[in-house]
Amino acid sequence: MTTATTATTTTATSPDQLDAIAQRAADIAPVWAATAPRERARALVAAADALAAASAELVAIAMAETGLTEARLTGEVTRTAVQLRLFAETVVDGSYLDVRIDEADSAFALGVRPDLRRYRIPVGPVLNFAASNFPFAFSVAGGDTAAALAAGCPVIVKAHSGHPLLSVRTAEIVAGALESAGAPAGILQLISGQAAGVAMLNDPRIAAGSFTGSIRAGRILADVAAARPAPIPFYGELGSVNPVFVTRAALDERSDAIADGYLTSVAGSAGQLCTKPGFLFVPTGHALGDRLAAQAAAIGEHRLLNPGIAAGYLDRRDAVLAAPGVTPIVEGSLRFDEHGQGWATPTIVTVSLDGLQLQREALLDESFGPLSVVVEYDDESTLAAHCDDLFEGNLTGTVHAGAGEDSAALRSVIDWISGHAGRVLFGGWPTGVAVTPAQQHGGPWPATSNDSSTSVGSAAIGRFLRPVAYQSVPHALLPVPLRDDNPWNVPQRRAGAGESQSWGESAR
Amino acid sequence: MTTATTATTTTATSPDQLDAIAQRAADIAPVWAATAPRERARALVAAADALAAASAELVAIAMAETGLTEARLTGEVTRTAVQLRLFAETVVDGSYLDVRIDEADSAFALGVRPDLRRYRIPVGPVLNFAASNFPFAFSVAGGDTAAALAAGCPVIVKAHSGHPLLSVRTAEIVAGALESAGAPAGILQLISGQAAGVAMLNDPRIAAGSFTGSIRAGRILADVAAARPAPIPFYGELGSVNPVFVTRAALDERSDAIADGYLTSVAGSAGQLCTKPGFLFVPTGHALGDRLAAQAAAIGEHRLLNPGIAAGYLDRRDAVLAAPGVTPIVEGSLRFDEHGQGWATPTIVTVSLDGLQLQREALLDESFGPLSVVVEYDDESTLAAHCDDLFEGNLTGTVHAGAGEDSAALRSVIDWISGHAGRVLFGGWPTGVAVTPAQQHGGPWPATSNDSSTSVGSAAIGRFLRPVAYQSVPHALLPVPLRDDNPWNVPQRRAGAGESQSWGESAR
Repeated sequence: MTTATTATTTTATSPDQLDAIAQRAADIAPVWAATAPRERARALVAAADALAAASAELVAIAMAETGLTEARLTGEVTRTAVQLRLFAETVVDGSYLDVRIDEADSAFALGVRPDLRRYRIPVGPVLNFAASNFPFAFSVAGGDTAAALAAGCPVIVKAHSGHPLLSVRTAEIVAGALESAGAPAGILQLISGQAAGVAMLNDPRIAAGSFTGSIRAGRILADVAAARPAPIPFYGELGSVNPVFVTRAALDERSDAIADGYLTSVAGSAGQLCTKPGFLFVPTGHALGDRLAAQAAAIGEHRLLNPGIAAGYLDRRDAVLAAPGVTPIVEGSLRFDEHGQGWATPTIVTVSLDGLQLQREALLDESFGPLSVVVEYDDESTLAAHCDDLFEGNLTGTVHAGAGEDSAALRSVIDWISGHAGRVLFGGWPTGVAVTPAQQHGGPWPATSNDSSTSVGSAAIGRFLRPVAYQSVPHALLPVPLRDDNPWNVPQRRAGAGESQSWGESAR
Repeated sequence: MTTATTATTTTATSPDQLDAIAQRAADIAPVWAATAPRERARALVAAADALAAASAELVAIAMAETGLTEARLTGEVTRTAVQLRLFAETVVDGSYLDVRIDEADSAFALGVRPDLRRYRIPVGPVLNFAASNFPFAFSVAGGDTAAALAAGCPVIVKAHSGHPLLSVRTAEIVAGALESAGAPAGILQLISGQAAGVAMLNDPRIAAGSFTGSIRAGRILADVAAARPAPIPFYGELGSVNPVFVTRAALDERSDAIADGYLTSVAGSAGQLCTKPGFLFVPTGHALGDRLAAQAAAIGEHRLLNPGIAAGYLDRRDAVLAAPGVTPIVEGSLRFDEHGQGWATPTIVTVSLDGLQLQREALLDESFGPLSVVVEYDDESTLAAHCDDLFEGNLTGTVHAGAGEDSAALRSVIDWISGHAGRVLFGGWPTGVAVTPAQQHGGPWPATSNDSSTSVGSAAIGRFLRPVAYQSVPHALLPVPLRDDNPWNVPQRRAGAGESQSWGESAR
C-alpha cells in the first residue's frame, strides 16, 4: 500500500477523501511538471516494468471481474506496458513540447519584434474516468493516464465499478513503481463512486477530464465539465458503429476471407470493443451467409463484462431482431447465469439498405456486444450519400476493395469516411488499435466529445498541455526547453530575424 | 458586391438567409479543403493585398464607427494584412498538418503494425464572432478568419454591431479578392444580429466557433456550443486584467521609464485592449505618482468605442473610485457627448495590497477603458501567494526586474504568471501583440474559454483542424500530404520499422 492511493476499498470515496486527494494532486503538480525528461521517462518505464511483472496476478483478478479471457487480458497488460514505454520515448524526444522561438527582429514586418519563445506546459491535475471494457489499457494505468503523466500532470482515476479490486491493485503497483522511481507521492490516486466522480470533476483543482464509455454517461460528464464556473477540457471517447464497406470487386476476390475477418472482429471480446464493426455493407447477391453461419458455429459463448452491459445487450439484440426487414444470418445465443451475468455467442443479421433507412430507430444505435448488421446495397456510387443521411461521427470506417481498384465511387466512400471518422482503414478490421505515433483514435461526435485529439497513440499527450509564451525573458530565468543552449536537446523551431520580409512572396 | 456576402445591410440576417449561408459554406467546404497549399496561400495573399490597397477607404469608415485614431487603425490594417501573409506562409510550410507516418512493422512491440499515416484536416465551416475593439485585426478579416481560411475552412463572420458598415465593406473587398484568386464563392460570408449569431452557432453545419469579447457574452456562446446535440469546439477570448509586477530593483533603476511605459500602455486606444495592464504592483514608498500625474496631463481625451462600452466604463470607474482605501493618482475625465458617445482621459488609482484584498468585489473585475490600479506591496516574497488568492486566468503577466536581478521571490512571480497566463513578459508592456509563430494569446479561464490554443500567431490554425489516420491505404488513394513522394514537400515525421524494439531503453 503506497501513500498515493487513499481509496483502497471499493466503497465510494467520501467528500473529505476527495478533498484530500485533490489537494495532494494540486500540491505535487508543480513538482511533477518540473521533472526533467529522463527522470519522468524513468518513472514511466518503472511503471511499465512493474505492470508487466505483476501480469499474472492482475490478469487473474481481471478474469474474475470482467469475464474477459486470459489471452486477451495478458495481451492487454503487454499493450498497456508498451504504451507507458511509448510515452517515455515521447517525453525524451521532446517534440510534443512544440517549442517555437522567434528571434528578436528590429526589421519585423510590423516594427520591432521582441524575443518570443513558446512551448506547451502541463495543464495540472487530470481526472480520468476508467472504462469497463479495457480494464488495463483504458483504465487505471491506461492511455489517458500514461499521456497525462507523460505531459507532467498528476492523475486521479475514477475506478470503473466493473473491476474494483483490479483497480485498487493496479493503482498500488503502478503508483508504487512511479514513486519508487522518484515521482512525488500522490502522482496516481484512485477514487470510486459515480457521485464522487462528478464531484471531483467539479473540483476547481482539476484541470482536465478524460473518459471512455457510453454516450449517455459521457455526455453527462462533458456537460458537467462545460458548466463549471471555470470550464475545463473534457475528452470523452463515446460511441461508434464503425461501418465497413465491401466493394463487388473485393467480394469477388476474397469472399470467405472477408466473412472470416468480419466474424472474428465482431466476436472478439464478445463484441465489447469501441471499434467493433457494427455494419458491413456488401453488394446484393453476396454469399457470405453460409460461411458466416458455419464459422459462427465454432465460436463458444463468452461472458459479457457485467450484468448491466448484458441487460443493455439483451435490449438492443431484441430490438434489432424484431425490426421489420431484418433477417438473422446467425441467431446467436444469450443466456443469464445465476449471478446475473450474461453469456453470448455472435448474432449476425442482414437487412437491405432501404430496410436500414426505414428501421433506423431500431438499428442505428451501437449494440455493445457480439451483434452486427450486414447491409445489402445495390449501387456503390450512392453509398456515400446514403451514409451522410444515416451516420453521425465514428471512430473508424473501413473499405474492402479489390486489388488495384480505383473508381469515383470508391473515392467517394473514402472521402465520406475521412469526413466522419478519425481513422480510415483499407482492408483489415478496425478492432486492434496500434499504439503508435501516427494512431488516431477519435472522431466527430458522438465518437468523441472533442475530436481535436486522440485517446490512443503518442499524440494523446497534447490533451493535457497548454501553450505559454515567454517574451524577452533573460536566459537565466527561461524554462529549460526554451534556452538556446537546449540542454534537453528538444526540437526547437526558430523564426529568424529578417524572415518576415519575404512573407507572402513564395505564394505569389 | 460579390456573391459571397448575402447580408449586405446592417439589419439582422433572416432565418432563410442564415440557412442559405450555412448551406453554401457546407457545400464549398470540401472544395476549399482540397485546394493545394500554393493555391490557398495565393488567395490569402490576394486578400492581404486588397485589404492594404483599400486601407484609406476602410480606415475612414472605421474612424467614424469606432472613434479609434487614424494612426491606430492604419497600423491595424497593416497588421491584419501581415497576418494573412503569415498564414499564407504557414500553409505553404505545411508543418501545421502534423504529418506522422508509421511504417508497417512486422516486428512491432505488439505484433504486426500496419502502415499508419496521420495528418490534420479542416473541421468544416467556422463561425467567427467579431470583436468591437479591433475592427480589423479581430473582425471580418482578422486572426480567426485568417487562421480558419488557412486551415481550409469556409468562414462565416458574425459582424460586430459597433462597426456594421465597415464589416460589410471589408467582407466585400476581402471575399472579392479571395474569390478572384480562385477561392469558391461563399468562402467568406457575413451575418448580423445577436439572435442570428446564436442561431448560426446552433446550426449543425457549423463545425467550430470563435469569439473575442466580454466574459458575459463569451460564456453564453460557449454554453450554446457545448449544449448542442453535437457539441463543437468554441474558442472564446474573454477577459483579462494583465497584472504587472515591478521589483524594488527595477523601481530604483528606472522609475520614470516604468511610469511612462505603464501610462502609455493604459491610455493607448483609450484602454480598450484585452492586454491593457489593469494592475501595476509596485513596492511601497515608490514615487510614481507625480510622474504619472504630469504625463497624464498631456493626454487628450479619446472617444470610447460605443455608448454601451462607455456606459460600462462609467459604472466600473465609479465603483473603483468609490471603493474604500482607493486613492486617485490621476482622476481622469469621462464625459458624454450629444450622441451618447463617451470621451475619456486616463484614470489611475492606487490601493495597498491589503486594500485590494478587502475591496476585491469592487476592484478585481476588468475595467474596459483607460483605468488602471497601482497596488502597493511590502514583501516581494509573498506576492505570488497573494496573486493565487486574487486572480483567475489572464492573457498576460509582466515582470519588471532590475538588470541581472535573480531571486527566489522573482522566480516565484514568474512561475505564478506561467501558471495563470498565456504570456510571460519580462520588461516591456503587454499591449501590442506580435503576430508571429511563437506568439501565445490565450490563457486559463476567464482569459479564454479554451486555453489549448491561441488567437494570435500562426499556431491559431490548430483551432480549426482535426486529425485523421489512414491505415494501409494504397498510395494512389492517399491524401497528398501523406504520400511518400510528398509533392507538396510538407514535413513528414516517420516512425521507422524496428524502432519499437528500443522503447524505454533510452530512459533507463
